[in-house]
Amino acid sequence: MVSEDYKAMLQGKSIIRQLAEYATARGAEIGYENVFDYSLGNPGVPAPQAFTDEMIRLLKEEDPMKLHGYSQSQGIPEVRQKHADYLNKRFGMNYTAEHLFMTTGAAGAVAHAARAVTKPGDEVITFAPFFPEYIQYINRTGAKLKIVQADTENFQIDFDAFRSAFTDKTAAVLINTPNNPSGAMYSEETLKTLSGIMRKMQDKYDHEIFLLSDEPYREIVFDGKTCPYPAKFYENTLTCYSYSKSLSVPGERIGYVAINPEAKDADLISAMCAQISRGLGHNCPPSIIQLAVANTLGVTSDISVYETNMNTLYDELTGLGFKIVRPGGTFYIMPKALEDDSVSFCNKAKEHDLILVPADGFGAPGYFRMAYCIETEKVNRSLEAFRRFVNECYPGRRD
Amino acid sequence: MVSEDYKAMLQGKSIIRQLAEYATARGAEIGYENVFDYSLGNPGVPAPQAFTDEMIRLLKEEDPMKLHGYSQSQGIPEVRQKHADYLNKRFGMNYTAEHLFMTTGAAGAVAHAARAVTKPGDEVITFAPFFPEYIQYINRTGAKLKIVQADTENFQIDFDAFRSAFTDKTAAVLINTPNNPSGAMYSEETLKTLSGIMRKMQDKYDHEIFLLSDEPYREIVFDGKTCPYPAKFYENTLTCYSYSKSLSVPGERIGYVAINPEAKDADLISAMCAQISRGLGHNCPPSIIQLAVANTLGVTSDISVYETNMNTLYDELTGLGFKIVRPGGTFYIMPKALEDDSVSFCNKAKEHDLILVPADGFGAPGYFRMAYCIETEKVNRSLEAFRRFVNECYPGRRD
Repeated sequence: MVSEDYKAMLQGKSIIRQLAEYATARGAEIGYENVFDYSLGNPGVPAPQAFTDEMIRLLKEEDPMKLHGYSQSQGIPEVRQKHADYLNKRFGMNYTAEHLFMTTGAAGAVAHAARAVTKPGDEVITFAPFFPEYIQYINRTGAKLKIVQADTENFQIDFDAFRSAFTDKTAAVLINTPNNPSGAMYSEETLKTLSGIMRKMQDKYDHEIFLLSDEPYREIVFDGKTCPYPAKFYENTLTCYSYSKSLSVPGERIGYVAINPEAKDADLISAMCAQISRGLGHNCPPSIIQLAVANTLGVTSDISVYETNMNTLYDELTGLGFKIVRPGGTFYIMPKALEDDSVSFCNKAKEHDLILVPADGFGAPGYFRMAYCIETEKVNRSLEAFRRFVNECYPGRRD
Repeated sequence: MVSEDYKAMLQGKSIIRQLAEYATARGAEIGYENVFDYSLGNPGVPAPQAFTDEMIRLLKEEDPMKLHGYSQSQGIPEVRQKHADYLNKRFGMNYTAEHLFMTTGAAGAVAHAARAVTKPGDEVITFAPFFPEYIQYINRTGAKLKIVQADTENFQIDFDAFRSAFTDKTAAVLINTPNNPSGAMYSEETLKTLSGIMRKMQDKYDHEIFLLSDEPYREIVFDGKTCPYPAKFYENTLTCYSYSKSLSVPGERIGYVAINPEAKDADLISAMCAQISRGLGHNCPPSIIQLAVANTLGVTSDISVYETNMNTLYDELTGLGFKIVRPGGTFYIMPKALEDDSVSFCNKAKEHDLILVPADGFGAPGYFRMAYCIETEKVNRSLEAFRRFVNECYPGRRD
């Protein structure tokens, strides 16, 4: 019989997908240029030419048997070595090829990393606001995702709530910096406090507690800053990365898990991930894509557009009276809605062809998320729609 | 803590991998051309130029935002439509795009298909000899793989043993035709009897029993025949395919599940597979590879070399006194060893630089597998090694 479990999931269409489909339908009606669709986190700039050129070079010059052949389950050895060298230079780490496991994007990375350091019945702590797919990524391993309430002041971490969340079943803590949906980037201070608490809890419960650090937005940071690298702060860290955002290749499914060489069983975890793959049906990410990203390490799409868009929206929406924690990175911003019910707020915005996502599903009721990975020209034109929307629906809120 | 479960798996290095590593080490010693490595099922001919050309064309001509963007979780709609059209024409089916689910190879296909039609605790029947990864593919879903003993006469199906294997927990039957490791192709008669029994068991136990048909070797068939299409014989069939063998692109991880439109809940299963992906960390196979295979449907590598190799080996080994079921397809042959202990037999062969795999792990003790996806020239040179090996170790066996 077909699985009742998965059949039931068909009923729960995500609100993001519903809104994106509405935007497409509305665009067909009034012209897509007139719909300000801030729903989907799809990169808004093309892959860099260097990536395309490298793909073509591989196809033209490499032996097809080698190029398209099975890679080791852990990933192509030279690809892992290049990643180790790159990360060592950039972050002052000591990775070897044996600490790298190539994956099909961050989803694959978290799916493997979580299985490597938990067992069914364990608990994995994460922080609101959070990427809702984490529920699937973690709970489908047999472990259970436990959400710590948001620090709504600055979207760092509510450490009192964090401390209270630990039990003897806590096996891992999952962070996402810079963060989808808030855009917040964890400060060094946040990471120091986080790791200090985790070390204490390791002692208290007498077992390792791993940090799963999901960093697909690592390159998209603003104001000339760089994102502190969580593995520098905590030994038992598995870093999960995806090239989807930095290279604008989300469909090509490529990323990695990097295991901190200081972690417990650091030399085994990548090989364990290869064992995990056997049950998940992964095997390895596509060979040619592995080679293409390894040969263009350090290259990114023209991601500066996201900062331009962020500044425009932050300034305008702040001016309109929105309370916003200024994003440190990503292509998301998460203002507080102008009424307590963010679903109602977003429905009213929809009437002005502003497609905003209520953040309830991200664990931040009362807020909404905007994915501003769209053309700057469109962001600029959306401002007038925002002004009209706020003036008409919330006339008392504007100065 | 790291998972004890997956850590324990590190101890169980597969005998195939051990032998392949031995072959590489031995090759470094005496020259790789002198080691007759029949261990690994890696395609031995390059990807067709049409595939390479199409990849380059996509990179040069397509909008990179579209080319590398997220595909729907079920796969790119036009890719699924092209597959439906192709399969309908070739096999007289009635697939629509909604009956296709694009996967990362056959491993991904079986991982999704099995979860779609089983629940933890269910049983999935398969037939010896079988691809040992099936144990991982099925048991890691929470269901349990149940092996029916081999029909060693012709490597079709021992139907009495099959009938006895059903219980009220039987949710699916997993077949692989043409078969790795035996090379046997199920005849129409076999498929008719199989489906007749399955229909009766559906009635007896009053629930659907799905056929999972794993067909990565579908194109590699011999003697001018074509492989009967199992879905034509049984309504509740999920066909699992991989392009790894037909296009010689095993590293690019691309395949599909095709859901028979006559199956129970046929219109839901692809969408359910997309839900399953969320927990497995798949999302979708690489976009550019999806497009490249959809735009070269019907093209294959020069797979005729496998038939040449098979004929050479079959004739020579039969002449040397081996008992062999003549393969109908694939690039495997599975003769009976010349002593009861096939591990001992293969160890002796290794002394003659013949790398043969004992078939015990495939559920066929007493047999050995040869993957003859190597250069024909090398197959020819291996014959003398075989003669020497048999004459020296089993002098009484030769006519």
